Amino acid sequence: MTYDVAKIISSEAFGMAQDILRDQHDRFVDEIIELTEIPSPPFKEERRAKAYEQKFRELGLEDVHRDEIGNVLGIRRGRGNGQMIAVAAHMDTVFPEGTDCTVRREGTKLFAPGVGDDTRGLAALLAFIRALDGAGIGTEQDLLFVGDVGEEGKGDLRGVRHLFTKGKYRDQIAGFFTVDGLQLEEITTRAVGSYRYRITFRGPGGHSLMAFGTVNPAYALGTLLAGMARINVPETPQTTFCASTFGGGTSVNAIPEEVWTEVDLRSEGQAELDKLDADLRDLVEQAVAGENARGDTTNGEIAAEITRIGNRPAGGTPHDAAIVQAAFAALPHFGFEATTGSSSTDANIPMSLGIPAIRLGSGGTGGRAHSLDEWIDVEPEESLRGLYAGLATILGTAGLAK
Amino acid sequence: MTYDVAKIISSEAFGMAQDILRDQHDRFVDEIIELTEIPSPPFKEERRAKAYEQKFRELGLEDVHRDEIGNVLGIRRGRGNGQMIAVAAHMDTVFPEGTDCTVRREGTKLFAPGVGDDTRGLAALLAFIRALDGAGIGTEQDLLFVGDVGEEGKGDLRGVRHLFTKGKYRDQIAGFFTVDGLQLEEITTRAVGSYRYRITFRGPGGHSLMAFGTVNPAYALGTLLAGMARINVPETPQTTFCASTFGGGTSVNAIPEEVWTEVDLRSEGQAELDKLDADLRDLVEQAVAGENARGDTTNGEIAAEITRIGNRPAGGTPHDAAIVQAAFAALPHFGFEATTGSSSTDANIPMSLGIPAIRLGSGGTGGRAHSLDEWIDVEPEESLRGLYAGLATILGTAGLAK
Repeated sequence: MTYDVAKIISSEAFGMAQDILRDQHDRFVDEIIELTEIPSPPFKEERRAKAYEQKFRELGLEDVHRDEIGNVLGIRRGRGNGQMIAVAAHMDTVFPEGTDCTVRREGTKLFAPGVGDDTRGLAALLAFIRALDGAGIGTEQDLLFVGDVGEEGKGDLRGVRHLFTKGKYRDQIAGFFTVDGLQLEEITTRAVGSYRYRITFRGPGGHSLMAFGTVNPAYALGTLLAGMARINVPETPQTTFCASTFGGGTSVNAIPEEVWTEVDLRSEGQAELDKLDADLRDLVEQAVAGENARGDTTNGEIAAEITRIGNRPAGGTPHDAAIVQAAFAALPHFGFEATTGSSSTDANIPMSLGIPAIRLGSGGTGGRAHSLDEWIDVEPEESLRGLYAGLATILGTAGLAK
Repeated sequence: MTYDVAKIISSEAFGMAQDILRDQHDRFVDEIIELTEIPSPPFKEERRAKAYEQKFRELGLEDVHRDEIGNVLGIRRGRGNGQMIAVAAHMDTVFPEGTDCTVRREGTKLFAPGVGDDTRGLAALLAFIRALDGAGIGTEQDLLFVGDVGEEGKGDLRGVRHLFTKGKYRDQIAGFFTVDGLQLEEITTRAVGSYRYRITFRGPGGHSLMAFGTVNPAYALGTLLAGMARINVPETPQTTFCASTFGGGTSVNAIPEEVWTEVDLRSEGQAELDKLDADLRDLVEQAVAGENARGDTTNGEIAAEITRIGNRPAGGTPHDAAIVQAAFAALPHFGFEATTGSSSTDANIPMSLGIPAIRLGSGGTGGRAHSLDEWIDVEPEESLRGLYAGLATILGTAGLAK
């Protein structure tokens, strides 16, 4: 279903929602600070989740709860056609336990780990709900607001994966926004999928002199790496691979018993990702067989263990999907020249399942995400421009009830 | 010069020396314990060296001093033909600072890190000097007693290397014993030479997705390792190589800026060792060139750094050398079936310089050298059999003065 975004934006109700966003911008900033200062390390989002759940309750959302995996959910009912548009932001940061998350303010700039990625997104959801409530706006479809866990790194999208595979609303979600990051020029419509592995080669080891000739797992690793360098991948859909980290061995005078590498495989296309995955597995098999054929296996053979340490499916949302069309219609109204791009976000999961989804920024400017020097600028004009555009895109997707 | 070993062993003076070794065996054991309990970690032999120097002084050796590198030296003059036979044992252990070196005694067994390798050897030298003095034995050639530093691991034979390249007696030493380890069946006449390297490949790094195509040092490392697996080495002289330890990379989603391996090259033949060394360097060069040809070098090229972390020259002592002949004559008298073997010890240095040298055990039994569970058995009969054989071999080399 497509709604007339221009009409929505020019409606009296939407104007009122904009006024409320403007009037309450200070409160929005306060909430960014409040939430940023509740640390939310990987796999330890619970404290922030509790606070966010409390916010949802205070806003009067329906069925507010934390699900089995730790996501915070709350519904703002629309006219009840049974379909939901999910609007999510992620609660986890990349920063480990013990990181100082105190926000330092300099003028309109806020400095703190996680302040932009994605705490501004979490606060934006709250601001949207207040604006909708204050302007008395109803939507055609239900809005499911979500603060999710496990977006970053080894979190491996587990919050949103749960939402779409085991969550109680999994069959009702017809569209998905992840409000993640700041910028709104480029919306993410293509999900870069990735498989990440730790590949460990093991063998019997032995003294470098006395056991010379014994199979050496390092040579199997070498054959794998040299083989990876020769893998051909398509440019479109973009497909990449990388052997990234290494370790193993105990002493310069010992054949290692174990060597390992961590590898990263990515593609915008699931079929290409799976092809790359198969190529890698073939190389591992050949490397093991080659070294066992070359060396002495009296004391044991080389074996490889492939452990998946990351799994993000590829996917995409077609340009003619209502959610993309809504963004293309709404963003230019607020001065954003909309383009599409690819990245790896919570939207990977619905995209891989064929459910229309995009990543949308929450506005404002900033930098140094994933570093201790992360900062955002909440200068109101630029900040509000993003909030207006985001809310208009959401309403363009969920529909403004007459 | 060759001396009649059978005659030496049957002499009254040597019989008296044996009696003294037997009478003072408890003192020998006490000295093993005393020296073992003075920790002597790699590059930190100073405390043990001070104690050992004091022992040399108390025994009345001439020109007792610690040299520039930390070796303890003392001379027992012979008839003064100007040539010296060096008798050395190494003071360093493989155990790091903080290792508990307290000796635990169970019957005739002594348990402690370093007790056999090579503290028994250090104590044996003191026992030899007392026996020679007590029996009034003069030698044809001067005896240079040495407690040396840096035999183990990264010590890289620096003590004995200094002795033969910069030491004040370097031009006078005509034969060299390292009293190292326990067993006397096999004397070491062939020095396994080794070169050890840390090979580091460096490149510009970058994001695994965004910078895909950039040269990756891991693929250069892979090419090196795969190439090493194909190196051909001769069986005689025994020549071996090993890629042993690995590391590098910072994150699974980043092209590594640096990866490294440590490799061990060994040979009983210096020419074969140098050939292997050249092969390795060629492979490194090819690996670098190959990856720079394959990948994008816009942000920088792959470069390799080869750092030598170990350098032990190969060499050998001919079987007809007086020092080997003395051992072959002396050992069977005490029930040892003498054979020759190869290893990497302090004797590498003189062997590589063409100076006759052997490694000789100090006798007794034991096990678990280089482990915290190291032990020796000082049961007197077996222990003394080794001391007698060692002293006879030394006298067979240095000559018993009439």
